[in-house]
Amino acid sequence: MGWSLAIHGGAGSILDSLTESHRIAVEESLQRIVKSGIVMLGDGQAALHVAEELVVQLEECECFNAGHGAVLSAAGKHELEAAIMDGATGRAGAACGLRTVRNPVRLARQILERTMHVFVGGEGAEDLARAWDLDRVPNEWFTTKRRMNQLTEFLAADPHDHMHHATVGAVVCDSKGDVAAATSTGGMTGKIPGRIGDAPLIGAGTWADSRMAVSCTGLGERFIRAGAARMLAARVELMNETLAESADAVLASMPPESGGLIAVHSDGDVVLPYTSEGMYRGWASEDGAFGFAIGEEARD
Amino acid sequence: MGWSLAIHGGAGSILDSLTESHRIAVEESLQRIVKSGIVMLGDGQAALHVAEELVVQLEECECFNAGHGAVLSAAGKHELEAAIMDGATGRAGAACGLRTVRNPVRLARQILERTMHVFVGGEGAEDLARAWDLDRVPNEWFTTKRRMNQLTEFLAADPHDHMHHATVGAVVCDSKGDVAAATSTGGMTGKIPGRIGDAPLIGAGTWADSRMAVSCTGLGERFIRAGAARMLAARVELMNETLAESADAVLASMPPESGGLIAVHSDGDVVLPYTSEGMYRGWASEDGAFGFAIGEEARD
Repeated sequence: MGWSLAIHGGAGSILDSLTESHRIAVEESLQRIVKSGIVMLGDGQAALHVAEELVVQLEECECFNAGHGAVLSAAGKHELEAAIMDGATGRAGAACGLRTVRNPVRLARQILERTMHVFVGGEGAEDLARAWDLDRVPNEWFTTKRRMNQLTEFLAADPHDHMHHATVGAVVCDSKGDVAAATSTGGMTGKIPGRIGDAPLIGAGTWADSRMAVSCTGLGERFIRAGAARMLAARVELMNETLAESADAVLASMPPESGGLIAVHSDGDVVLPYTSEGMYRGWASEDGAFGFAIGEEARD
Repeated sequence: MGWSLAIHGGAGSILDSLTESHRIAVEESLQRIVKSGIVMLGDGQAALHVAEELVVQLEECECFNAGHGAVLSAAGKHELEAAIMDGATGRAGAACGLRTVRNPVRLARQILERTMHVFVGGEGAEDLARAWDLDRVPNEWFTTKRRMNQLTEFLAADPHDHMHHATVGAVVCDSKGDVAAATSTGGMTGKIPGRIGDAPLIGAGTWADSRMAVSCTGLGERFIRAGAARMLAARVELMNETLAESADAVLASMPPESGGLIAVHSDGDVVLPYTSEGMYRGWASEDGAFGFAIGEEARD
């Protein structure tokens, strides 16, 4: 038993385009964010709170496709989306089509806490962020030079060549055995304005219940068509399998190189499988496990 | 074997408020739409096409909360949403936040056919409808006197008193054994602008795969939190149960009176369970079954 956590910063064909300086920045960020989670969980903080705070940190880091550093749509704008789900209560919150909300996962959490709804999009979601005094920024605040270059390359090339569709996420099991999941993303480079991916869809990219929590990343449409997160939870509930077996079965049911997922079980088990070339990821648990990785080699 | 179909026009506490003239209009519509499905399937048309056409007819009928006759948001506007999924290919299309698209399910179908995306919302979705020359109408075109009265009552009363959150949907198994599902809705009376319900969420209110297809209706947030449609499909895949047993298990896992669902199996089996007071529904199959009902008593 004991607490455990995992985070991800996206999956895909990330090794080829990885410069040394970017690799160092990613590894430093993963390590720092995992360590902050270790402190929070050691302090006895609740899974839902820790999942939100881990994703806020991933959003704030420009290495990852969420919040500051998010990719640009075909219209050269950022449209952000996020979801959070509390396994202990089954409550969930999600938002999409955000243009000025600095931390989309915070809006998702407030929708969970303050409304009878789960999912709010576009202007209505922006209105809630304004009414609730969440941090708001101009749309350009999210833009980095790297993402502008990616959009330029995308618009000049075959759209299947440059898929930048990563996501960030966290799954947490706290010291009481409650679990939670949160996911946040800028979507995919060059997406049609208004495109909604798997990240904010409860049951596609994000899920938590009394047994487990999962956050997915990769080719979002494939995770939607697979109902991936909900199917993993269904297998955990219905089949006599380990969390790893269930997670592998879900990824195996999808086309090759679709992406990956992170999941925790309420018994403290953590898995981080992926079928893409790599997945930015980090993990820790109360028994002393701690690590981060991009490709196959783990570091700690 | 053989073809089969089911349609629904929403579930809830519908019997108390049902006037005799409205009951007659609902029953006439259900009967007429089921009969049109019988003709299409008898002609050998494909499940995906028939599911779309059945939902278009439900959208056009002012009795039901979708298309013309849809409920109003708290802002006095219509925001429509729909989804469609093809069991044979696993492809899906969905749209939300629509204000001028006369038949939301047609846009969902075109997103399935023409894009690499599954789900598009708001202005981006409106832009696609414009680019693809789909029928568009002023937002007021969807409004009926009945829905204006419901919003007035809602705004004057406790918001939990008057939940008008119905949906329309169709599930179809064609003569080849392929299945499809489609769902469309105006959401719930007095919803926060931007609220997205379960209807357009693949895996929450709508799902189809090689084995079965399902469309849900009722308190949308409960279906999202249950991942209801995907869980039903998971049970059908993983458990040695009948479609009826799986559907009852999913509804039983949710709070009482959450709503209902319609589902078809590729073997032709049809179920229409609900835990609410009633569910507008109709069904038919190649073996001669045909009926429609609102509460417990079925008519044919």
